[in-house]
Amino acid sequence: MVENCGATAAPGSMIGVDEAREIVLKVAKRLEPATVSLHEALNRVLAEDVVAPDPLPPYPASVKDGYAVIASDGPGEYPIITESRAGNDGVGPIPDGADAVVQVEDTEQIKDASVESKRVRIMLQAKPGVDIRPVGVDIEKGAIVLKSGELVGASEIGLLATMGVMMVKVYPAPTIGVLSTGDELVEPTTSSLSWGQIRDSNRAMLLAAAIQHHCKVLDLGVAPDDEEKLDKALDTALSAGIDILLTSGGVSMGDRDFVKPLLQKRGTVFFGKVRMKPGKPLTFATVNAKSKENTKVNDILAFGLPGNPVSCIVCFNLFVVPSIRYLAGWENPHLPRVQARLEQAIRPDPVRPEFHRAILRWNNDGLCDPGTGGQMSCRLLSKESANSLLELPASDHVIPAGTLVPAIIISDLSSTSIAMTNNPLPSTSHPITRKS
Amino acid sequence: MVENCGATAAPGSMIGVDEAREIVLKVAKRLEPATVSLHEALNRVLAEDVVAPDPLPPYPASVKDGYAVIASDGPGEYPIITESRAGNDGVGPIPDGADAVVQVEDTEQIKDASVESKRVRIMLQAKPGVDIRPVGVDIEKGAIVLKSGELVGASEIGLLATMGVMMVKVYPAPTIGVLSTGDELVEPTTSSLSWGQIRDSNRAMLLAAAIQHHCKVLDLGVAPDDEEKLDKALDTALSAGIDILLTSGGVSMGDRDFVKPLLQKRGTVFFGKVRMKPGKPLTFATVNAKSKENTKVNDILAFGLPGNPVSCIVCFNLFVVPSIRYLAGWENPHLPRVQARLEQAIRPDPVRPEFHRAILRWNNDGLCDPGTGGQMSCRLLSKESANSLLELPASDHVIPAGTLVPAIIISDLSSTSIAMTNNPLPSTSHPITRKS
Ligand SMILES: [Mg+2]
Ligand SMILES: [Mg+2]
Repeated sequence: MVENCGATAAPGSMIGVDEAREIVLKVAKRLEPATVSLHEALNRVLAEDVVAPDPLPPYPASVKDGYAVIASDGPGEYPIITESRAGNDGVGPIPDGADAVVQVEDTEQIKDASVESKRVRIMLQAKPGVDIRPVGVDIEKGAIVLKSGELVGASEIGLLATMGVMMVKVYPAPTIGVLSTGDELVEPTTSSLSWGQIRDSNRAMLLAAAIQHHCKVLDLGVAPDDEEKLDKALDTALSAGIDILLTSGGVSMGDRDFVKPLLQKRGTVFFGKVRMKPGKPLTFATVNAKSKENTKVNDILAFGLPGNPVSCIVCFNLFVVPSIRYLAGWENPHLPRVQARLEQAIRPDPVRPEFHRAILRWNNDGLCDPGTGGQMSCRLLSKESANSLLELPASDHVIPAGTLVPAIIISDLSSTSIAMTNNPLPSTSHPITRKS
Repeated sequence: MVENCGATAAPGSMIGVDEAREIVLKVAKRLEPATVSLHEALNRVLAEDVVAPDPLPPYPASVKDGYAVIASDGPGEYPIITESRAGNDGVGPIPDGADAVVQVEDTEQIKDASVESKRVRIMLQAKPGVDIRPVGVDIEKGAIVLKSGELVGASEIGLLATMGVMMVKVYPAPTIGVLSTGDELVEPTTSSLSWGQIRDSNRAMLLAAAIQHHCKVLDLGVAPDDEEKLDKALDTALSAGIDILLTSGGVSMGDRDFVKPLLQKRGTVFFGKVRMKPGKPLTFATVNAKSKENTKVNDILAFGLPGNPVSCIVCFNLFVVPSIRYLAGWENPHLPRVQARLEQAIRPDPVRPEFHRAILRWNNDGLCDPGTGGQMSCRLLSKESANSLLELPASDHVIPAGTLVPAIIISDLSSTSIAMTNNPLPSTSHPITRKS
């Protein structure tokens, strides 16, 4: 018995990862900025400079707890005029005329004074300006407080609130549509699998990954390996107002590859094979968005991701994340690259550069890969998700333990237990080490 | 002229940061797990093990593109029975009876065969099992796929979908209420400030920070420095179904401190002063939640954060984030600590351990602090938000450049440009360095 498992060669030649990503970012266009309310600006990139309408502080404010005085009055007994709170917040207004603050420690309450005329003894010659934050010392009126291109986090939201900026121009979040392809795929809701069926996991995974990258998402369902049905599914997808289309499956050597020709029909396929492991069958195209109002809209970036879940998420990180960031206005759309020390030898792929999933830990004074992450292309299980991808150039030689290799950070390290040692409570008595 | 800027000493003695955090995490209780739908499980911690209902793959699947054969049949010409796609996805089912896959490269299509009876020449003696992924090789039926305590990211969502798990038990997101206090505070919507007014920025900042940590949030507005009004505001807050209450302002030395006594009235104040800079006036209490249905509910964790925005966000990171994570089921609720090399000397505080905001970069083989972040307690502006807090023990001595100091990662490094050099396109030809 013999069976054709399929052997259609993907068209186009293989290109390198850097070249491929360069192509993607070259054809990508930033989304049109939109003015949104303050709370919608979180995690967005500013598309305009923000100028301070008032100085901060808007009035002279006391830094220390104490008594606002006229320095030239000198030490002595004085009546307390009005109360105001300075506090360590540094927001207590200094009344007109006062030019210094005398700390509580340098004063004495006069105990026998009547309630009607509270008095205090100033025991020190104050110097003008001491412990007073002058108007605008933090932010001058008219100063650029935030620059176009800055990412809005919690601190920036606070700063915008301080400035009274309630509406701000930002690059919007890209909308990503996710379509799975494959005859073998059934909905995850399917409780009992028939022969040859598997539940679709890529769609849920990619939708979640896009949400983690602050995108709007659209679930486009599953299309079978049928040219006509896929064609229809793409029509629906491309008229749904998306900026990025992610398909998974249907691009591998062994697949009936309908994805590439159907994308080609609608636009331009830039590449269909990338020299990388995993992720070789990655396909990228731009396709014309079907705008209902015939308005000019940007081309949709379409990624034909491999069906294997590991290949799929590696391609998402290496290609889709920078695209999302570029569209969303990030000045540097790339995932950061650091260096990590291998604690176990790794045999790289002899032909293709490998992106090796790793769970980096912090060991002594650097990041290391203890070598606990499983790499088998179809292997989904590991105790924890990878936080990085080691970049291993193709080689016939084993990379020995102790080697420093480039690593791309793919997850939020502040959410990961990267400490090697089980350090239940961070300690401020942690030793400080001098450079040797 | 003399004016009382306020000088009420905060009650209670000063405690260390570690001790303070230990107290908080000791009284904190995990939230009651709830069963949610798959898409709601993103960013949540599992409160149950997830078991595979089927093996993966559920059928023998081809790894390579080629022809499924019976190995013992040997080389020769065979008819092609049915078509199926194996592909690099490794999901192509192998028909019953077949026990090996012969790669396309080791076969020849027989060109003159009629369409009715496609034939192929097998040129190789296949070995049974070669290039076949047996049933359950990735995941055995009944295996624990995900463990209670694991954080659900995009990969875990994919894994749950593969398993057909549509409802899953997780620790819910804490609900955080945020209340600002201070007579000087006006709404950020106020376009023109009167004398002595500043716009409230902490509330917007804290709400945004809580959202970034995947919490549900409740904006409780501003309360003036008035005991009765604050009392009422707290009543409203505590009956709103929150798990954590954040107030800002009203705890500094120079404030009329109504926050502590009003919290004490409703529960237990554990500390009101912490040996740290900034953040000394940090107050922590547990208070009884006012449940409408008289059901037993956990005490609310109440943090009296300092009014200064920088102190406020530092306390949020050091104390509130671990609390959020603890309530949300994280096994390790702490922010990760790494080491960073100072590129500029720092003069630490002589009395209190300092948490020094820094924008860490990657330099050669480690993280470093180029020393560009402004530290003035009220200074809000810097080109970029800090991604870490350096932990500097109190000392009279300057910490020289080159020293390695502990650093707490407070932001998502995968969203930061931590590269020192402007490396526009990561390159796979990045050199690999051998251990010296
Ligand atoms: Mg397929
Ligand atoms: Mg106040």
